[in-house]
Amino acid sequence: MVHAGFLLPMSVLHLQVDSSGITDVPGFEAAGEYCDIRCNGEDRRDIALIFSPVPCSAAGVFTLNDVKAAPVRLCQQHLQQASAFHGIVINSGNANTCNGEQGLQDAATMAAEAAKRLNVPAASLFVCSTGRIGTLLPMDRVKAGITKVCNHKGPDPVQGHHAAEAILTSDTETKTVTLTGQWQGNPFTVAGIAKGAGMIEPRMATMLAFLASDVMIAPSLLQAILTSSVERSFNRISIDGDMSTNDTVLFLANGCSKLSVTLKEPELLEQFSIAVHQVCYLLAEKIVADGEYRTKVVELRVKGASSVRAAERVARTIANSLLVKTSWYGNDPNWGRLVDAAGYAQIGLREDRLDLCYDSIAVIQAGQPILENAPYWEKIVSRPRFTITLNLHLGNSTYQLLTTDLSEGYINFNKDESTA
Amino acid sequence: MVHAGFLLPMSVLHLQVDSSGITDVPGFEAAGEYCDIRCNGEDRRDIALIFSPVPCSAAGVFTLNDVKAAPVRLCQQHLQQASAFHGIVINSGNANTCNGEQGLQDAATMAAEAAKRLNVPAASLFVCSTGRIGTLLPMDRVKAGITKVCNHKGPDPVQGHHAAEAILTSDTETKTVTLTGQWQGNPFTVAGIAKGAGMIEPRMATMLAFLASDVMIAPSLLQAILTSSVERSFNRISIDGDMSTNDTVLFLANGCSKLSVTLKEPELLEQFSIAVHQVCYLLAEKIVADGEYRTKVVELRVKGASSVRAAERVARTIANSLLVKTSWYGNDPNWGRLVDAAGYAQIGLREDRLDLCYDSIAVIQAGQPILENAPYWEKIVSRPRFTITLNLHLGNSTYQLLTTDLSEGYINFNKDESTA
Repeated sequence: MVHAGFLLPMSVLHLQVDSSGITDVPGFEAAGEYCDIRCNGEDRRDIALIFSPVPCSAAGVFTLNDVKAAPVRLCQQHLQQASAFHGIVINSGNANTCNGEQGLQDAATMAAEAAKRLNVPAASLFVCSTGRIGTLLPMDRVKAGITKVCNHKGPDPVQGHHAAEAILTSDTETKTVTLTGQWQGNPFTVAGIAKGAGMIEPRMATMLAFLASDVMIAPSLLQAILTSSVERSFNRISIDGDMSTNDTVLFLANGCSKLSVTLKEPELLEQFSIAVHQVCYLLAEKIVADGEYRTKVVELRVKGASSVRAAERVARTIANSLLVKTSWYGNDPNWGRLVDAAGYAQIGLREDRLDLCYDSIAVIQAGQPILENAPYWEKIVSRPRFTITLNLHLGNSTYQLLTTDLSEGYINFNKDESTA
Repeated sequence: MVHAGFLLPMSVLHLQVDSSGITDVPGFEAAGEYCDIRCNGEDRRDIALIFSPVPCSAAGVFTLNDVKAAPVRLCQQHLQQASAFHGIVINSGNANTCNGEQGLQDAATMAAEAAKRLNVPAASLFVCSTGRIGTLLPMDRVKAGITKVCNHKGPDPVQGHHAAEAILTSDTETKTVTLTGQWQGNPFTVAGIAKGAGMIEPRMATMLAFLASDVMIAPSLLQAILTSSVERSFNRISIDGDMSTNDTVLFLANGCSKLSVTLKEPELLEQFSIAVHQVCYLLAEKIVADGEYRTKVVELRVKGASSVRAAERVARTIANSLLVKTSWYGNDPNWGRLVDAAGYAQIGLREDRLDLCYDSIAVIQAGQPILENAPYWEKIVSRPRFTITLNLHLGNSTYQLLTTDLSEGYINFNKDESTA
């Protein structure tokens, strides 16, 4: 599943098999419990806690949607106000979005309730919610859930798994990644958990991702590394073109390894940055691979654009074209629809310069189909994963994006009003 | 089906029942024949001719896609070169797009073959194609088809119907509109035919529309009226967000009525402009109503925006959101997804100012749901046609758009590689 185009060299980093996510990082505890936030009696975990008794540096990246969920506003506020952080309270099943003043109060109450039980300042906790928009949180259940996760939290892998489970909505499986590195004999860890599934698009998606590490690092440096990693990972995926009101990536670093990541140690800085990028990328890839009712993952590479912006625009236009996505679903190597979509990105494309490949097989060259290769095209687009490379021959800029096909299953699932 | 918000006053114009399209206009002839351009033996008309023995003024509006079909390029060239026009040759089943030099030659050959048989200059004819991209036209069949339409053309309603039929692709019915007016006792006619079905979006769609009138009018004035009408009709519809390489609207006016439309007769000019706008709007509405496997038509009205551009952006983002479209399909009054989509249009929306109505029923006011109305919401979004009004309360600009829901039928149909 690892593709060179997207990833930096792994150097000496080690990808942990059977990651349990957050609890793989020394000093971090987690919990995931059930408090029926969906109010439908469905027996699934829906409240999670990530906790570090040791105060952490923190960084965050949030949705660009004009309509921001109450917890997103709270997280942004806490990130401004406080300098030491202890954890994150997360609920699934209700997004706490478009709930006005009451929504903001409820998000603050979630932080306050957890803070009381954990004996830390409320501003040292983040709050995230995901699920349906426009319904008030059932706060009695949420408070009972917070009590449960505070009581049951711990450093065991099973608790890490429970947290990874409790944040899911329409995801079909948990998403966890753990990487370990070594620096001058000292180990360090970067781990993360995520949820995705629907509403996955531009700059961030309905997507929550939580990262933890045991390095010591200044918040500003952590923020710079996280922002850059998100840009090359979570921002490079598209399932349905919808951007959520709740997208959040948070990173806590507790310093327990005693390794200090600073600008003065460029090699350690690079290794840590690579680790963060890898964790983000692998989580993003898991989100795409678990896209709602997708049957294929497609890696789109647009090359030879006059600017990165133009390359991105072409990639996103192709990735969001319903006609392109449905042709992939039908195993139809319909390059015409793809070229059509590239054309309506309106970046000044020149049809007679276009080169297009499915995996390594040429489909069009200088705008003309290479018909002798046609027998291979359908074989490639029938695969569960393939790469499409479009060279515009207009410049040197490139952009890559992971996307999916679109099936009747997606439509059928999302017409059901019980989903977010 | 006529909605005040979109339409200018009808004044004394008369909408003809049982329109046969082009042949309703005095002096125009038409034909629609079968020449198996799809090469699959399917017995359906696939080549059409619109013809006026009397030379016409002409105007055209074309796709903004960077990738333009060969016939689009030819039309643009003829519109520049010539000043008198006699007709349009149209084929369905093959878009003649991405066919390089050969495609341009084939489009020119289509004009030349028809010109020879009709005894008019090749540059006085337009050529349009619609269908699958990237396959060369079977020119022997096309030439045989051109011979047929040139031999069988005539002014009868049945010939007008055949032309309206021959231009269809995945449409389920022909689209024809005829309006007649009177000016100082002299009648005039504006008629049109169109095809749509898939790939229907931004400024123009895979959409061909052909208009004819018997007024006398200078090409520059005809172009101004057509451009403005297209902007308020064909450009205000969205089915799947895909913009085609072949979109074309052409207008021929032969002067047979002896009525002269000029700037010096503002009342006649206004009446004619209204007639053109009505024909465009009614054809556009027929295209949406025949959207691929749609179950609903939704009229979106965005009000109170700081600019028309901002209003348009919000309307298009909502109209193209898969999550919004699938919720309509499921009769789910999911205003949360709608507000989410409005938010990621990123025009600086203020959640606490939003008013939303389904038809005349308030859904949210100042960002808060009006829960006592909830029982009505589902009834409205279960209707085959309803209106959604979103007031941003940020300014005075508005934008309206006709769109549809998205069903499994669309996906299932478009995954089939035999479609365009």
